[in-house]
Amino acid sequence: MNHFANHLSLLLLEVAAILAVARVAGNLSRRLGQPEVLGELVMGVLIGAVLSLALPSSIYTLIQSSTDGESHLAILGELGILLLLFGVGLDSRPRDLLRVGLSSLSVACVGMFLPLALGFLVCSVLTHDVPETVKPWQMHLFVGAAMAATSVGVTARVLADIRRIHGRESRIILGAAVLDDIGALVLLAVVTALIGSDGSQTVAMSWQTVVLITVRAIGFVVIGTMVGSWIFSKCRGWFVDTKYKNSQILSLLIFCFVFSALAELAGLAALVGAFLAGLVIDTENNSSKECIGSLPIDKQILAPITSVLAPIFFVLMGMQVDISSVVSAEMLLYTLAITLVAILGKIVAGAFVSGSWNQKAFIGAGMVPRGEVGLIFAAVGQTVGAFGSQTYSSLVFMIIFTTIIAPSLLSRLAGNIQEDND
Amino acid sequence: MNHFANHLSLLLLEVAAILAVARVAGNLSRRLGQPEVLGELVMGVLIGAVLSLALPSSIYTLIQSSTDGESHLAILGELGILLLLFGVGLDSRPRDLLRVGLSSLSVACVGMFLPLALGFLVCSVLTHDVPETVKPWQMHLFVGAAMAATSVGVTARVLADIRRIHGRESRIILGAAVLDDIGALVLLAVVTALIGSDGSQTVAMSWQTVVLITVRAIGFVVIGTMVGSWIFSKCRGWFVDTKYKNSQILSLLIFCFVFSALAELAGLAALVGAFLAGLVIDTENNSSKECIGSLPIDKQILAPITSVLAPIFFVLMGMQVDISSVVSAEMLLYTLAITLVAILGKIVAGAFVSGSWNQKAFIGAGMVPRGEVGLIFAAVGQTVGAFGSQTYSSLVFMIIFTTIIAPSLLSRLAGNIQEDND
Repeated sequence: MNHFANHLSLLLLEVAAILAVARVAGNLSRRLGQPEVLGELVMGVLIGAVLSLALPSSIYTLIQSSTDGESHLAILGELGILLLLFGVGLDSRPRDLLRVGLSSLSVACVGMFLPLALGFLVCSVLTHDVPETVKPWQMHLFVGAAMAATSVGVTARVLADIRRIHGRESRIILGAAVLDDIGALVLLAVVTALIGSDGSQTVAMSWQTVVLITVRAIGFVVIGTMVGSWIFSKCRGWFVDTKYKNSQILSLLIFCFVFSALAELAGLAALVGAFLAGLVIDTENNSSKECIGSLPIDKQILAPITSVLAPIFFVLMGMQVDISSVVSAEMLLYTLAITLVAILGKIVAGAFVSGSWNQKAFIGAGMVPRGEVGLIFAAVGQTVGAFGSQTYSSLVFMIIFTTIIAPSLLSRLAGNIQEDND
Repeated sequence: MNHFANHLSLLLLEVAAILAVARVAGNLSRRLGQPEVLGELVMGVLIGAVLSLALPSSIYTLIQSSTDGESHLAILGELGILLLLFGVGLDSRPRDLLRVGLSSLSVACVGMFLPLALGFLVCSVLTHDVPETVKPWQMHLFVGAAMAATSVGVTARVLADIRRIHGRESRIILGAAVLDDIGALVLLAVVTALIGSDGSQTVAMSWQTVVLITVRAIGFVVIGTMVGSWIFSKCRGWFVDTKYKNSQILSLLIFCFVFSALAELAGLAALVGAFLAGLVIDTENNSSKECIGSLPIDKQILAPITSVLAPIFFVLMGMQVDISSVVSAEMLLYTLAITLVAILGKIVAGAFVSGSWNQKAFIGAGMVPRGEVGLIFAAVGQTVGAFGSQTYSSLVFMIIFTTIIAPSLLSRLAGNIQEDND
């Protein structure tokens, strides 16, 4: 009998295993000239598949429960993706994003409505298991909506891996991702309200609520960044207090975490908050007059933490793919169709900015991954009864496939842009 | 209604609040010439007291539950203390520890048996609420045993804060801490067996089990460090692969986490495993012939992660103090008495090594904090019915008080040693 608590050992071994996977995946990806995140996602898929086949279902369930959204492991991964986006924000400057603002807006708008429309169409043609609780058009609309929103985590990681974070295309993508997240929040409110307005659902949502959500989200982005910038400029010295060695890293993390939490409380994705937090922190020191003794902020200080935590997020995301969910011919066709239009819709949206075809394609590809914002739509849709479990599985497959395909698409297209410039 | 998950916001705000506390505490401590960890512990105590007085009990319970051993916050802190000890191990060399091995052994032995004997005595004199399930001597013995074990986390942090990790005294303390942890494990097995052998308890433990536990613990330390050193020497190049930037930090963490988990599975404290992991990693490159292209390991690479996570551990530890548990005059006297002999026993143990009185006192003071190893004894004692809840509260108070007093004792004595040398 062992009285010493050993609740920690399992977590430590899990983290060690995932870091080992990340270590191997990163090395392999580098040798194959691919972004590291691709290796992490693919290794995650392989491990998930092997575990589901090799292990007795009881042990597999145990492992799955230790990788779900509320587990310690998942939380470590979420902190990693937050810090990743925070780092991307630190690398970006607000005025650079505003300069490409119109391009970002058109990418975000077209990139939401085109997949929504195409998804509606595909779902109408290949219609199946419409729940009794909703009318067919309501289900088709919800499926389309679940295809509209982009999640920028994977793209941000690829941009960092291939060192293209400062390019014009990257700025358009990042700006579009923020606008897309506002759009997604509003869209989710609208489609849920449309289902509720029918009176058939308990999850009723009034149009006043929709307006409130919209105002709150836009208000957070606009007022949040303004207030954040003001606070940062006032206590810049607090960030770069040279007398106390840990001041910089602690201050940066406090700023990032508070901003992320407020974004989530405003209904936006926490990682959009982390990006905005990084954006309002001016890493250069160009306000030299007022703040005596203030120094530039070292952007690399967070790199060790991010490089440990972010891979946990991507390996776990890969492990969530369940190939067995799309086995029947009918479901396979349906899944492939929505996946195809999900990719196509975003790629076409990229064509609505000026630039070479390679640049357009790169921007479109950057918006392809649906990630966890898509998963929220799918989960809510199933909860309010907009569609059944088969459609849910297809959506999850689409979300993960778009996420996994993005890294290799982006790195290939980045190479083409490079050749154009040479 | 907000469909976007916001389970993360609370944790983010908690982490941000604790980091802000650590930021302020660190700054204050520096100005007052105290180690930073003292500020973190004291701020934790103050916050705990304010929260318990100011908040409605329902909210206070909610906050307490989010700081208990299994919460995300506590896990982040535990990872921090592991990495702290790992860093201390990286800074130490096995042969330096072996050179002071006999001194460490005498400090560990005297430092365990003296508090045990004194605790037994105090408990016999000021006897109170002996449970019906045990005989008085069994209770006194268990209370004494709970006073025997040192937890080295706080001392390691102070040694790092005041930059004395390389001194001879520090090496004696670190060696004694490893031996002390083995001793504590065996002692816990023995006292539990003594209670069980009476037949009055369901938690029976045979003497064979005690031997098994002893062999396993010593075996892990001896064989673990040998095998660990061998593995490290064989895959040194894997740690310092210059082609892949994250290889070093990932490899170090994998090594640390696996070693810590194995130590915990062998019944030892995970942080002793982390220290041993750091010990077997040779940060200098003195095996230049065999490993071509291998480089020294950068010991500072973990500093950003540790400086963020470790304060979470210490602030939470401070918050666990519950002043209201020792209100009656009788309990106050009892608590003060065991706290006094707990400190005295360890200080006297320091006198059993050669050196100036200041050095002896420094070594003794380094062994004073009981930390989480003491908490395990207290928890097990209450579980097996060795003593009641009042005695448990007194022990917890003793454990936390010895932990809180150590940083200021150590930094004061370090100043004296400095003066001796000048």
